[in-house]
Amino acid sequence: MQNFMYKNPTKIIFGKNQITKLFEQIKPYGKNVLLVYGGGSIKKTGLYCSILEELEYFNVYELEGVEPNPRVTTAQKGANLVKEKNIDFILAVGGGSVIDCTKLISAASKYDGDAWDIVIGKHVPKEATPFGTVLTLSATASEMNAGSVITNLETKQKLGWGSPLVYPQFSILDPTLTFTLPRNQTVNGIVDMMSHICEQYFNEVENSDLHDAMMEGVLKQIMIYGPKCLENPKDYEARSIIMMAGTIALNGQLRWGFNGDWASHGLEHAVSAVFDIAHAEGLAMVMPNWMKFVMPNHVAKFKKFAINVFDVETSNKTDEEIALEGINKLQQFWQQIGAPTKLSERNINKEDIPTIVNSIARQIGNMQPLTKEDAAKIYEMSL
Amino acid sequence: MQNFMYKNPTKIIFGKNQITKLFEQIKPYGKNVLLVYGGGSIKKTGLYCSILEELEYFNVYELEGVEPNPRVTTAQKGANLVKEKNIDFILAVGGGSVIDCTKLISAASKYDGDAWDIVIGKHVPKEATPFGTVLTLSATASEMNAGSVITNLETKQKLGWGSPLVYPQFSILDPTLTFTLPRNQTVNGIVDMMSHICEQYFNEVENSDLHDAMMEGVLKQIMIYGPKCLENPKDYEARSIIMMAGTIALNGQLRWGFNGDWASHGLEHAVSAVFDIAHAEGLAMVMPNWMKFVMPNHVAKFKKFAINVFDVETSNKTDEEIALEGINKLQQFWQQIGAPTKLSERNINKEDIPTIVNSIARQIGNMQPLTKEDAAKIYEMSL
Repeated sequence: MQNFMYKNPTKIIFGKNQITKLFEQIKPYGKNVLLVYGGGSIKKTGLYCSILEELEYFNVYELEGVEPNPRVTTAQKGANLVKEKNIDFILAVGGGSVIDCTKLISAASKYDGDAWDIVIGKHVPKEATPFGTVLTLSATASEMNAGSVITNLETKQKLGWGSPLVYPQFSILDPTLTFTLPRNQTVNGIVDMMSHICEQYFNEVENSDLHDAMMEGVLKQIMIYGPKCLENPKDYEARSIIMMAGTIALNGQLRWGFNGDWASHGLEHAVSAVFDIAHAEGLAMVMPNWMKFVMPNHVAKFKKFAINVFDVETSNKTDEEIALEGINKLQQFWQQIGAPTKLSERNINKEDIPTIVNSIARQIGNMQPLTKEDAAKIYEMSL
Repeated sequence: MQNFMYKNPTKIIFGKNQITKLFEQIKPYGKNVLLVYGGGSIKKTGLYCSILEELEYFNVYELEGVEPNPRVTTAQKGANLVKEKNIDFILAVGGGSVIDCTKLISAASKYDGDAWDIVIGKHVPKEATPFGTVLTLSATASEMNAGSVITNLETKQKLGWGSPLVYPQFSILDPTLTFTLPRNQTVNGIVDMMSHICEQYFNEVENSDLHDAMMEGVLKQIMIYGPKCLENPKDYEARSIIMMAGTIALNGQLRWGFNGDWASHGLEHAVSAVFDIAHAEGLAMVMPNWMKFVMPNHVAKFKKFAINVFDVETSNKTDEEIALEGINKLQQFWQQIGAPTKLSERNINKEDIPTIVNSIARQIGNMQPLTKEDAAKIYEMSL
């Protein structure tokens, strides 16, 4: 167990009709609000109009069109808007991409240089414009953490960054807002939150038993209630549990005393920096193969995972066989709910591997650091 | 699932030697510090001297002698000190009692009336003196919540109260500070944190599956690592897990969307308002009998508890039998680690029950509201 500090000041406002709290939550910050959102699905669902009604009191400016892999150029545009319009508060309405982009807008709006400087660590934010979120897709937990992932198409990089200044002031989690999600987005959310837990479950410390137990429990519930959301998209209980699970999966409390491995995220970011695929799709393709690659060095932990999460029968099997069965069951679950589990399903082929490997930005892997050769092997296993 | 708001801004600073962070954490608040502690065990262990060294820069005033069931008179004394000495920051060093008392000092120091007004809800705090904690006993989670329980010997009442203003600014959790605890205090801590989880596990909503799964996991780990702390009080990993578990058990994140039953706490507070026994002792006596009393109306939930927490075998047993076996196993675990499980072990007898019932302050029980007659029956079962 490592020494750690933990502080997460985001206020969660959970349940039906909670957007009616927007006025009281935003008012203390001022009158000028920047509304940030994505491709316009909130206009189709009516959420856009409802939110504008709730924001009637404020001067609302808008930044539309945040990409699924949010670009640094979009965040820069938002930051410029905040400066020009003297924005007091930013409201992100969307999923992880919109929130991640808003975090960079928030920090870059108080910096005179280029937004990318913040992502690469050249500038450490000292100040940030406060923001809140209305979550429309459960997946990344960006609604209750201080991390953000940004893509730079120029440098072909997709990098994570964070600052304690970019915790949302509040996040509204209304499960009914996820009723109308396209099926594949619900699937991606499920894969994403499960992958976050797996990244933390396989970690760099010897004993994480307390948090392992919680993670095992959350994973099992996601595998029960995720499919229920797919069967009946308007199942309020199921959507609620998935929404809470997504937030809990990466709000920091599941990793007290360790960081987790995070190599699969590094591997995936390299893929989606080059190919514009959904983050969760990349994870479903890469993570089980990362597991198979590192498992022989961490058999006991993967065996525990297999038994406690997937109830793998142990009789007459070697530890490695038990461990492998758990990994296969994870991969099968993702396949069953409809996630792509091979790079080739998105037309990514053997000849693309060197380009992908080249875009791996940083040293990856905390439980087991990976070389570029290791990465190439895992991509090959994922074809 | 109910709508809810959740915000917990306390900073957790966990690990060895973290008291060296006191200076940097307190400095922003000012120079005048009130140090609040209990019966002086921190003087025996040397912690008192170490803390004074860390606080060398500050003007330190002291309030010693906070009782195990902290009295409103002590909190009033502390509040008066804060006003007289222009205290900028309060530092609580101790377990739940010291921290609970500090919370009332914090709120009452900004109020001209009687501190008891705050406990009974006659005055709602608008302001509070900021405070931090150094935890020396894992049990109540008061180090990361905004609740407090205060005893009034005059009115023979022991009441809980809370305010979002009394979250600690920070809490230092150094497992080595619990190495020297007397055995019975470690036992009491284990019972207390387990009882907090049980109070939330048995709750008023139909579906709390996600949080149930986490609670089951935490309970199981407490039952693994609690005994390890008793066997080897200097087992850092075991002390760490118990310390984190105690905080997680009642920092609010295990009860997103519900409150929990809390009748056993109401029943226990009535006992220790009249008899000056340790809170956890009262819980160990009363809670299993509360469970037996309400179980027939909630068989499915108690069956789940028995199977998921205690691995009770189900073949050839009725649901009630399975449920009862789980309750018995909880009671046996508490007995095995040395907790008293009968009121008579503390010389509380049948003739005392009417007095105890009379001191039940409020309507108790959210999953199943209890009448005073119900309470009397549960006390009788606990003799």
